[in-house]
Amino acid sequence: MKDILDKAAQIKLVVFDVDGVLTDGSLYLADDGQEYKAFNSRDGHGMKMLQATGVELAVITGRTSKVVEHRMASLGIEHVFQGQRHKLPVFETLIAGLKLRMEQVAFVGDDVVDLPVLRRVGLAIAVQDAHPLVKSHAHWQTPSNGGRGAARDVCEFIMQAQGNLDAQLGAYLL
Amino acid sequence: MKDILDKAAQIKLVVFDVDGVLTDGSLYLADDGQEYKAFNSRDGHGMKMLQATGVELAVITGRTSKVVEHRMASLGIEHVFQGQRHKLPVFETLIAGLKLRMEQVAFVGDDVVDLPVLRRVGLAIAVQDAHPLVKSHAHWQTPSNGGRGAARDVCEFIMQAQGNLDAQLGAYLL
Amino acid sequence: MKDILDKAAQIKLVVFDVDGVLTDGSLYLADDGQEYKAFNSRDGHGMKMLQATGVELAVITGRTSKVVEHRMASLGIEHVFQGQRHKLPVFETLIAGLKLRMEQVAFVGDDVVDLPVLRRVGLAIAVQDAHPLVKSHAHWQTPSNGGRGAARDVCEFIMQAQGNLDAQLGAYLL
Amino acid sequence: MKDILDKAAQIKLVVFDVDGVLTDGSLYLADDGQEYKAFNSRDGHGMKMLQATGVELAVITGRTSKVVEHRMASLGIEHVFQGQRHKLPVFETLIAGLKLRMEQVAFVGDDVVDLPVLRRVGLAIAVQDAHPLVKSHAHWQTPSNGGRGAARDVCEFIMQAQGNLDAQLGAYLL
Repeated sequence: MKDILDKAAQIKLVVFDVDGVLTDGSLYLADDGQEYKAFNSRDGHGMKMLQATGVELAVITGRTSKVVEHRMASLGIEHVFQGQRHKLPVFETLIAGLKLRMEQVAFVGDDVVDLPVLRRVGLAIAVQDAHPLVKSHAHWQTPSNGGRGAARDVCEFIMQAQGNLDAQLGAYLL
Repeated sequence: MKDILDKAAQIKLVVFDVDGVLTDGSLYLADDGQEYKAFNSRDGHGMKMLQATGVELAVITGRTSKVVEHRMASLGIEHVFQGQRHKLPVFETLIAGLKLRMEQVAFVGDDVVDLPVLRRVGLAIAVQDAHPLVKSHAHWQTPSNGGRGAARDVCEFIMQAQGNLDAQLGAYLL
Repeated sequence: MKDILDKAAQIKLVVFDVDGVLTDGSLYLADDGQEYKAFNSRDGHGMKMLQATGVELAVITGRTSKVVEHRMASLGIEHVFQGQRHKLPVFETLIAGLKLRMEQVAFVGDDVVDLPVLRRVGLAIAVQDAHPLVKSHAHWQTPSNGGRGAARDVCEFIMQAQGNLDAQLGAYLL
Repeated sequence: MKDILDKAAQIKLVVFDVDGVLTDGSLYLADDGQEYKAFNSRDGHGMKMLQATGVELAVITGRTSKVVEHRMASLGIEHVFQGQRHKLPVFETLIAGLKLRMEQVAFVGDDVVDLPVLRRVGLAIAVQDAHPLVKSHAHWQTPSNGGRGAARDVCEFIMQAQGNLDAQLGAYLL
């Protein structure tokens, strides 16, 4: 655990998969072709707190929907990459552009398509209900399932490791 | 418990957070930008019974959506404050306007943004699946999770403490 | 149990509450005011089988929405009463019109508003996650929760008591 | 288990029921008559991997909705049969057209309407939360419930039996 906290202390960018990580994997589809997703309010607040400490956030997803744009805009997340069947190339372009080293990046995933990126980052995180192969390659597993607080777990874990959690939460105790 | 029932006996206003309290925290979003929430029918009936006993209800939420307006209107709740990133100022204005003392107010929350209000009210209530820090500052925790009966728990608990529960439920046993 | 099966054997009409019985109590609302409900496919098939044995079905609900009309039409249910804050008067009109005695009617409910009807019918059924007061007044409790198979439980229980279950299910084993 | 893996090794076509198998059985309906379904992202990836190994997929469902068309198109599934109250005739036409023998076909179901097909195929699969009668007639039961990974379980089970799982998953470990 000491080792994993050390890894988390170095993180400057957290990249999230969307379906199964920021949601429970449910793809709500309608007769008219619209797509719906159920995000989580407590995840959203965690992501805002983590950003406030200076850590950047990004999402990379294999699917494409306008609903992801809406949600990420409301969370102030600029780095949004959709329709990426292969996540590694866009990921590598992103960290090169941000001039980050692998040790400074965390990735949070749930399925095997996340493995090429997950296996390369400094801190590899699987949600609690991830595919077994993803869990076996992760440094850390969130206590919560995807869409049910997993992203909040990640944000608090990194703030804890970086010594920022007490200050962020303490602001609500004044 | 005696002490908490004493606190509940004095309550004249119950203020609810929305996401994670009246819902399970799921933010359903659509491609076209619309927002959806899943409220709970049994919560609604509890809130109507509690109002019938003379206790006032209010909601204060950090987010803004028309769906909250619709639901609160159907429940007959007048005091609806949305888009309140900081909940304390509007809360203080509300209780000043209603000429209530802190001991006469209960607040029901699930996340750390609720703490500034929660820590000041006479009866601080956390839903069962609230953030641990919120639970640690609450006088009482609902048996049910947010969106799955937590608000109903609150309403029956307060009616019980005020000696009104048997009359409210008994009306259905005539 | 023998006694309850005897009661079920006489049933000619089953009346269902909607929210919390045919759904899990979630009221999905949208920004534009539309309402959505999540019904259950296995419940639907049970209701069709029970109707095929000659038992009539009805729903009485306190709320009003077009979505209930749509669902009941697709299940071939004619007796649909919405917006009934007090369920007893419309219920009594219904059974008088159908020339049924109380012993020939079952009611399935989840909340205290269902009690006035529930306490009068020949077979009073509460879903597994009903309000405790409703469960205490029911002759039988479904193994499944509302919206998660409770109505299917009811339909198979009555077909079993009336000696029709094997024939209905057996048709799929030819 | 050896026997079931032998059956799975011969499968060239997997036919899925929709409601309760690719979803959790929830039928989301709206006031305006639209229908919505919640599919699962990890199921979708499993179905793509299985197709990549040369196994064909089909769906046969008793209901009819445009949302099923949309989802199946996005998964590249051509054989989509909706509105089939009786599933056996269309199933027999399908396998005759594909020139397959019963031993080469698997069917995945959850309810009794699936039994006429389920009892004839070489590999009969019930989702974990299927009707007890369906489970009793299945060769194999998925560890996951319908809509919560059952289809992914099926796809990995067949790839495992056919010696293709390591290659499919291994592609993400390069």
